[in-house]
Amino acid sequence: MGMQRSPLLMSRILDRGAKVAPNTEIVTATETGTRRQTLKQTRDRAHQLAHALVDAGIQIGDRVGTFMWNGSRHLEAYHATAGMGAVLHTLNVRLSDTDLEYIISHAGDRIIIADADTLPVLEQLKGRIPSVERIVVATEEGFEGWSTDVAPAVDYEDFIAGKPTDYEWPDIDENSPLGLCYTSGTTGNPKGVEYEHRSQYLHTMAQCMTDSMGLSGTDTICGIVPMFHAMGWGIPWSALMLGCKQVMPHRFMDPTRLAQLMSDEGVTLSAGVPTIWQGIKGLVEADPQRFDLSQLTRLTCGGSAPPPSLIRWYFDELGVEMIQGWGMTETSPLATLSRRQMKHHHLDMPLDQQFENVAKQGQLMPGLELDIFDEDFNRLPHDGETVGEILVRGPWICSEYFDDPQPDKFHGDWLITGDVGKIDPEEYLILSDRSKDLVKSGGEWISSVDLENHIVALDGVAQACVVAQPHPRWDERPVALVILDGNAEVSQEAILEHCTSKFAKWQLPDEVLYVEDIPLTSTGKMDKKVVRARLEADDYVLPDLRA
Amino acid sequence: MGMQRSPLLMSRILDRGAKVAPNTEIVTATETGTRRQTLKQTRDRAHQLAHALVDAGIQIGDRVGTFMWNGSRHLEAYHATAGMGAVLHTLNVRLSDTDLEYIISHAGDRIIIADADTLPVLEQLKGRIPSVERIVVATEEGFEGWSTDVAPAVDYEDFIAGKPTDYEWPDIDENSPLGLCYTSGTTGNPKGVEYEHRSQYLHTMAQCMTDSMGLSGTDTICGIVPMFHAMGWGIPWSALMLGCKQVMPHRFMDPTRLAQLMSDEGVTLSAGVPTIWQGIKGLVEADPQRFDLSQLTRLTCGGSAPPPSLIRWYFDELGVEMIQGWGMTETSPLATLSRRQMKHHHLDMPLDQQFENVAKQGQLMPGLELDIFDEDFNRLPHDGETVGEILVRGPWICSEYFDDPQPDKFHGDWLITGDVGKIDPEEYLILSDRSKDLVKSGGEWISSVDLENHIVALDGVAQACVVAQPHPRWDERPVALVILDGNAEVSQEAILEHCTSKFAKWQLPDEVLYVEDIPLTSTGKMDKKVVRARLEADDYVLPDLRA
Repeated sequence: MGMQRSPLLMSRILDRGAKVAPNTEIVTATETGTRRQTLKQTRDRAHQLAHALVDAGIQIGDRVGTFMWNGSRHLEAYHATAGMGAVLHTLNVRLSDTDLEYIISHAGDRIIIADADTLPVLEQLKGRIPSVERIVVATEEGFEGWSTDVAPAVDYEDFIAGKPTDYEWPDIDENSPLGLCYTSGTTGNPKGVEYEHRSQYLHTMAQCMTDSMGLSGTDTICGIVPMFHAMGWGIPWSALMLGCKQVMPHRFMDPTRLAQLMSDEGVTLSAGVPTIWQGIKGLVEADPQRFDLSQLTRLTCGGSAPPPSLIRWYFDELGVEMIQGWGMTETSPLATLSRRQMKHHHLDMPLDQQFENVAKQGQLMPGLELDIFDEDFNRLPHDGETVGEILVRGPWICSEYFDDPQPDKFHGDWLITGDVGKIDPEEYLILSDRSKDLVKSGGEWISSVDLENHIVALDGVAQACVVAQPHPRWDERPVALVILDGNAEVSQEAILEHCTSKFAKWQLPDEVLYVEDIPLTSTGKMDKKVVRARLEADDYVLPDLRA
Repeated sequence: MGMQRSPLLMSRILDRGAKVAPNTEIVTATETGTRRQTLKQTRDRAHQLAHALVDAGIQIGDRVGTFMWNGSRHLEAYHATAGMGAVLHTLNVRLSDTDLEYIISHAGDRIIIADADTLPVLEQLKGRIPSVERIVVATEEGFEGWSTDVAPAVDYEDFIAGKPTDYEWPDIDENSPLGLCYTSGTTGNPKGVEYEHRSQYLHTMAQCMTDSMGLSGTDTICGIVPMFHAMGWGIPWSALMLGCKQVMPHRFMDPTRLAQLMSDEGVTLSAGVPTIWQGIKGLVEADPQRFDLSQLTRLTCGGSAPPPSLIRWYFDELGVEMIQGWGMTETSPLATLSRRQMKHHHLDMPLDQQFENVAKQGQLMPGLELDIFDEDFNRLPHDGETVGEILVRGPWICSEYFDDPQPDKFHGDWLITGDVGKIDPEEYLILSDRSKDLVKSGGEWISSVDLENHIVALDGVAQACVVAQPHPRWDERPVALVILDGNAEVSQEAILEHCTSKFAKWQLPDEVLYVEDIPLTSTGKMDKKVVRARLEADDYVLPDLRA
């Protein structure tokens, strides 16, 4: 033995930011403004929360649920549970009561820390979540008069009041569980991904690499992606380690409020799904002087692929680099990232070509292995044309689901991602689609994402969503749902004509439907399951099948 | 178990650069110019070398020595041994034959890969290194006619010729040894530090963080620090992982040649000891138009502290950020780093104050723990004034020496660094000195480094070295050796007068000695052991003790 065997525990890096940058602020949006505290205060309160949880009977390995927006107390819950060795189970506040009942019981959450405004949702679970011994209620402005009888409840501030501000983090095994996050698949019950200390520690280090998200202690980070979704993409951990200023939007997720918050706080980096950036783009276009986004340098975009036209708009109009990432709850989540310049030869590459690369899902993070396979699990060539199932493995990739192994989702030590794509000769991953969102027509695959990106680039189109509809002869055929800009008028013929520049005739949507809104999932992606269900409820029939 | 148990092996990240950036170049300086190969070629040749080593009987865990400058074949040796699980023992080509004999035998090197120009040094070891079965000779221009009889020898190109270009890297334990590097202390035999896969893997990830050296695949890196010194500060590994262009100076280490190489190849980041940057500064001052250093953005500086005036000169004159780092062979080596802006509040800090911070040894790398202690191992306050022994621990810190544990160099799981310093309220480490280089006068410590930095900032002074000399009353008193710029004339009175602006009278050197050169160690630091020995050989006596 020549080197120390220090375990890779989050507690070894968590307190660092508060130590090196004690006065840096954590800003939380409130009803009428913001609530501010320093990193040192956040750290001290996290240590107090750990004491309070232990005093309430929580032991190493016990699950502590959170039912919270992005805010300083949610961050404290991250910090406290990770430090003391409890397991943070982030509950998605937008899930149905059926899913919540299943998830809370399956995880066996003993305590749930909840934002007061979410209590009405929890109330629905009265009598259905017997594992929960106590609710700790985090109160924000306007919700001081909360009450609940779903379980014995205590105010967060009362819960931690008077506890010591130093908790000696225990040395536990580095493979101990750290967090739990359930994914809602298309079929069956939600499945839990259990993050571990070692996996998230390595993910944190990778996230702070220059060629990754390039996080720095100088950054002011606004994580818009909810902290209940795949550990908020890991941003809370990295920001705590580096000592970044963090700006947390809480429940105020409309584009106007977000843009104002980013403007007021001088945000340098933000992270969220493309629909957020579409919304903010619309606001800036409507009134370019309204917000000061001059400090903003990077937008990290994941969840679904941003249209190339959106990536380019942010660069050309605001000088902001959109960093595309791909991953999933099962990959902690960062798996691939695409930056404008991440290789030596990119420096001499024309800008248009650089942006073609950014529009791809990106380069594999150091430490992971990823490949595309045929249905017999033979590796496929990286020619940029051959499409296959994407499998990934590495130290922050899920190996089985929590208390529900699901062996068919794995192949040896590989995770079968359920995504389908190709790899080009430069080793860029190019996602075709979720397997379930591909349109299978006449034995050939049509990428709904490719069609959407192309349609949305047309002037006058604000958003586009392509889904499959059943067809007796072709199996499935694509249909496009389109939201137009304000007063724009774009005919179906114009849209289809625009598509012929890139797609074969058989790949074109059979119909363009004009809609007012497109339903989103709890994580802000277009919810194609709901879109398909709506079409079915409306008895939609493809044009050539109509009587 | 929720996450995959992928071992942290260098083989999991080594091949990445060649995969994502196959055509990026590795450039090696030669007698008349440069020799160039691509990263893909480098990777293929490394895999061939692994086959050749195995065919020559090398097994997992066996030591393979290198006696080489920085060049593409040395990089291949790094790559091959790490991939196959052999242990790379980098031999310092500037060591004495006595030390080399001891080190090679202590490590039990079975094969030594040597640059042809170093063979005369190895020849001195004939009959004294029985463990060595074979010498593999890397031939560069001008040394084609090499011969040696120190052991059976083969040309490197013949050794790898015809071997397959794919070696399936074995899965070994992540705590397996990776490399071996001996440090020459002041007393006793050199001591071996054994790097492991896990330790160097984590070091590599930390090195690529934005707030660390901020390495990127877009960088063109010139590692001037020898690859036989603490794994070349880890740069070869990071550059292989990211796919950076690497520019390797081989044996051509004079400032003119280095500056020309950096100019010709568009180097963006270089790394070396301060004396190198002093030399290049002199060249640029003499003829500002001679070299094109416009691509250069960062100089990483370690080994000893750069004078603040040097740090400032590079920023003001060339727009280059000097990144100061502190560490040692035992710390893999990066332990602390100082960048101009690495915290949120640095953004609003006046430039002068930013540079005061850069002149400190820096902020602790995420993942490590460091503190200052009194002689009873009580932690001392971080007030920027209290001086103590620096201890450090973490996953890339040495826990014992190779086959020579030296328990007195450790305290529990802490490494006792032998350096002395203070920590300020911003958590910056400020090194006073090596314990052995402090001047102890009348029970008080005088920092030789502080005096040197101050003296060298005076116009006309090119270099300064302060050492202790014995004194019957005060125990020790400082003496300054000074090299003046070209034709400059700076009197002893002027230098001492300059020192009074910062130092107390009792801290001033007793005498200023004008010298032509200051001896350097094999790693380019001022060799105070030799300086003191020279003074002794010259029967030097302090002024107030002269008859």
